[in-house]
Amino acid sequence: MSLQQMDGTALLPQADGDPGEDPEPAHEAALPLAAWTRAVRPSIITEMLGLMSRPGVISFALGLPSPEMFPTEAYLDAAARALDDRTSLQYRPPFAPLKRQIVEVMRQRGVACREEQVFLTTAAQQGLSLLARLLLDPGGTVIAERLVYSGFQQVLEPFQPRILTVGTDPRTGIDVDAVERLLRAGERPAFIYVITDGHNPVGVSVSPEKRVRLVDLARRYRVPIVEDDAYGLLHYDRPVLPLRALEDRWVLYVGSFSKVMAPGFRMGWTVVPEELVGTLGCAKDASDINTSTFTQRLVSEYIGSGHFARHLPAVREAYRCRRDVMLAALAREFPSGARWTVPTNGALIWLELPEAVDTTRLLPFALETESVAYVPGQAFDIAGGTAGRNCMRLNFSHSSPADIDEGITRLARAVRAGSA
Amino acid sequence: MSLQQMDGTALLPQADGDPGEDPEPAHEAALPLAAWTRAVRPSIITEMLGLMSRPGVISFALGLPSPEMFPTEAYLDAAARALDDRTSLQYRPPFAPLKRQIVEVMRQRGVACREEQVFLTTAAQQGLSLLARLLLDPGGTVIAERLVYSGFQQVLEPFQPRILTVGTDPRTGIDVDAVERLLRAGERPAFIYVITDGHNPVGVSVSPEKRVRLVDLARRYRVPIVEDDAYGLLHYDRPVLPLRALEDRWVLYVGSFSKVMAPGFRMGWTVVPEELVGTLGCAKDASDINTSTFTQRLVSEYIGSGHFARHLPAVREAYRCRRDVMLAALAREFPSGARWTVPTNGALIWLELPEAVDTTRLLPFALETESVAYVPGQAFDIAGGTAGRNCMRLNFSHSSPADIDEGITRLARAVRAGSA
Repeated sequence: MSLQQMDGTALLPQADGDPGEDPEPAHEAALPLAAWTRAVRPSIITEMLGLMSRPGVISFALGLPSPEMFPTEAYLDAAARALDDRTSLQYRPPFAPLKRQIVEVMRQRGVACREEQVFLTTAAQQGLSLLARLLLDPGGTVIAERLVYSGFQQVLEPFQPRILTVGTDPRTGIDVDAVERLLRAGERPAFIYVITDGHNPVGVSVSPEKRVRLVDLARRYRVPIVEDDAYGLLHYDRPVLPLRALEDRWVLYVGSFSKVMAPGFRMGWTVVPEELVGTLGCAKDASDINTSTFTQRLVSEYIGSGHFARHLPAVREAYRCRRDVMLAALAREFPSGARWTVPTNGALIWLELPEAVDTTRLLPFALETESVAYVPGQAFDIAGGTAGRNCMRLNFSHSSPADIDEGITRLARAVRAGSA
Repeated sequence: MSLQQMDGTALLPQADGDPGEDPEPAHEAALPLAAWTRAVRPSIITEMLGLMSRPGVISFALGLPSPEMFPTEAYLDAAARALDDRTSLQYRPPFAPLKRQIVEVMRQRGVACREEQVFLTTAAQQGLSLLARLLLDPGGTVIAERLVYSGFQQVLEPFQPRILTVGTDPRTGIDVDAVERLLRAGERPAFIYVITDGHNPVGVSVSPEKRVRLVDLARRYRVPIVEDDAYGLLHYDRPVLPLRALEDRWVLYVGSFSKVMAPGFRMGWTVVPEELVGTLGCAKDASDINTSTFTQRLVSEYIGSGHFARHLPAVREAYRCRRDVMLAALAREFPSGARWTVPTNGALIWLELPEAVDTTRLLPFALETESVAYVPGQAFDIAGGTAGRNCMRLNFSHSSPADIDEGITRLARAVRAGSA
């Protein structure tokens, strides 16, 4: 078919823009993609979801909740009540009763906030993604721990930012001295990313003293903190106040029901100064318009039934037990040469092995010979280097206590055999 | 509290980075936001969601489906089956059976594709958002119609792109001559955005001849087309093949169940060359990790029950009837001086009034005096100018036939009174 004949411009001279003849046929040519895509590293989460599904594997790899703790009957009741109102299937403004319920959840977390400061998101990941969009220009600067949640690394990728990294103390959390040195040297990042409780991947909670210092730094240097509190409601000791409880303007809080209800609902929220809600709304409209109005309503009906308040302590108790089983098994199986974090929150333990062990190289061996999986520590190095090379992240919420005990036994055998 | 004393650096000289004293207290200072946020225009969708909820208002404003067409009992059955498998509440890889069902839906749409080319998204909006992320660099170039879906305008905002606009013919759609002139002049945009059927806001479907020319241009100039087919399954005449049926490499297709099932599930998909799926996956992990695994499973169970295939023709028939009621009312109430599109697809009619009418100024009057709402045409001008100033977008899927008839009568009275 001749386009020249069709639009009557056959007699016009061809401009520079005409592609002319090209030896490479169009159906083989590569599609031109945005620059950031050339720097993409494969997603650890996606890879691990594949590994997890192999039969017989005991996996400590992903931060998954336990499916036995999903109260499916109560969820079905909530779904039925949600479907009683057809507007719960429609495009809608964020569901106001759910926002009010989140204000109450935050109150129990020690945070005073108002409904107007609560912004509903498609789980915590979208909260992080939208806050990055709100605060960060392409090529801008962020302060983060060098070992950090891989999903946060993916949030940053499209921005190709300058990342200033600080260390993580396995007992007290983020290196606040290093943060202060950076700020004092004149750095003014778009934000500081902090996982306050149940750190991913290190499993540590930030000490109370460091919390006070962090919010003081944020105020003094006028640098926002993005506080990722995805594991905040899963506490096994007396909970410590999150940063947002200490500072309501310079701390932008990210919360989630994924770990305490189910990841499958994709329900989360942020708590931000009210004047940011409109702009966050524009960024969210661009991303997905609405978080599923159906799951918003379902989660709200579930909370409203009173079941959530009764069930959450049982979830905590189950995971505390699993944590203790894993800690006991670690003490038994790794009598020397290894150390690990003792988490007060969340679902993750960080196991540090002797310097000589390379956990990335060990993983295929551990999978093949012992059918046990974990995430190699190095996968969390935001600098793409070898930090965490002799470490691994272990999840204790997903497997049964018996599997945890057996899995750590297998893991220890794999470490001994693999490093022999 | 003195930080200097706490970290033992009190005796160090203060660097430039020290904020020192500042007359403006931290709790009043503005948070520093990314540059794009200063260019944000308020969201039409969000504003309209507010207007819609006023009692007594007949609203033609939003492209909402009709809640009476939601088969809530069948959805509850599907929810129950989804909850039978607890993994439908877990983080999971995209649900493969749903991908295979979408391959079949695409086949019925005239598109041959494979499961490996189907990428599940949190409805069509996320499809657009992720494809923009994949293809467009900040400050890059896009070709789009000047009058275009406001949600697409929001997708572009964070990129602050150069937008090359072309016109829309109310009978044949996008001005392909103008697209060709731009390409021939040497423009190589990151992509061309095309709404093939049931154009938002104009209601037109692209003529078959223009479809052939568009894919030919995409191939020749090696410029991808992002084809937004959100209304493709809502056809009222013999459907025309979408662009993706004509070209499987340079056309990236966006589909959705929002208009044919319910927006509240947030289930959509893209069909792209297989080698892009991995990078799209990284962009999606960054955005929200998973589309709700629960609604993925629910939608799959619903399709699997056979109800979707039986119900979709009834949805089309109901909307065809509503379209015809609106067209008849327009012909009765606007005997001269106005013209409107006759949509073969979708849910939207574009009404063009005499040049002197400013529909943005008319809206508060129409709401106040006649309790009738629409979206002013100018809201869809991607250039932020006055294109569509004397036009309005009318939705015919949401209101009952009786309300449509009454609403158009009210609208005509408002136009006559408002322009008298």
